[in-house]
Amino acid sequence: MKHLISALVQNVPGVLSHVSGMLAARGYNIESLAVGETEDPKMSRMTFVVVGDTYILSQVRAQLAKLVTVVDVQDLSAHEFVERDLMLIRVSAGEESRSSILELVQIFRASVLDVTPDYLMIEVSGNESKVEAFIDVMRPYGIVELVRTGRIALARAAASETLQKAKLGD
Amino acid sequence: MKHLISALVQNVPGVLSHVSGMLAARGYNIESLAVGETEDPKMSRMTFVVVGDTYILSQVRAQLAKLVTVVDVQDLSAHEFVERDLMLIRVSAGEESRSSILELVQIFRASVLDVTPDYLMIEVSGNESKVEAFIDVMRPYGIVELVRTGRIALARAAASETLQKAKLGD
Repeated sequence: MKHLISALVQNVPGVLSHVSGMLAARGYNIESLAVGETEDPKMSRMTFVVVGDTYILSQVRAQLAKLVTVVDVQDLSAHEFVERDLMLIRVSAGEESRSSILELVQIFRASVLDVTPDYLMIEVSGNESKVEAFIDVMRPYGIVELVRTGRIALARAAASETLQKAKLGD
Repeated sequence: MKHLISALVQNVPGVLSHVSGMLAARGYNIESLAVGETEDPKMSRMTFVVVGDTYILSQVRAQLAKLVTVVDVQDLSAHEFVERDLMLIRVSAGEESRSSILELVQIFRASVLDVTPDYLMIEVSGNESKVEAFIDVMRPYGIVELVRTGRIALARAAASETLQKAKLGD
């Protein structure tokens, strides 16, 4: 089972290495990871996907909680959440295939970022399955390269309030 | 100066820890990092921002090249590229402020993902400065939480062909 973990960490050199080193040392594979700044310049938020059962998940949480640079850890998969993954993809697109690609771009509410006589660069965001479905429909045209951010997520409002209350011990 | 590095790495446990450990050991701070799957299930692509001068950059590249799990490294900042950062943000939005927030959402071509009587959850993607501009205009309403993917990028077609030729030794 895949677990989506969100950790608030101090924005200091080495924190990424602490966290990823701890996970690697215990043999947990991280399927995707996104680390970005937050509204507070002293903090970053890491979102990552760990594959494993409930026991592995509880171990990961317990180990993360031991790191002084880790301020807060949430298992988003336990709540209702909204997730997004962003992809940039370059696809072969000559004159004969361009219009059918552009139709798919519209259906997926994607956007074209760059165009040359031979290629299109396209941006698409959505949940993991949407992004993967877009890769599947582009494959026949020829994918030249692609880059993905990995998943990020926020709990839906109701779930977020529950989390907040749980933290306050209500 | 900020350098945007794109590294193609083997999708094996520990690769993230190798890379981030190497960077941390040498005191290089990573401002953002995104690791996602690629079209090849055996490979992942890491995109990260390192702050430093040309000497630091060349050191980072040299050290990365030594790691067996790192297949290819590009300094995208040296070429023309398209970058994107994705953010999910929850903002306080009561009845009195909702319409002015929605106007800003339209201007930034952002989208509303979730709404409750008190909050809006919004998705916005763009280059770093667009995402930061959106944070600035949301701040007066009250940012409850936000999460960002960190930057990803692809070289524009012309630049990419140059890179390809450079690799082939043309």
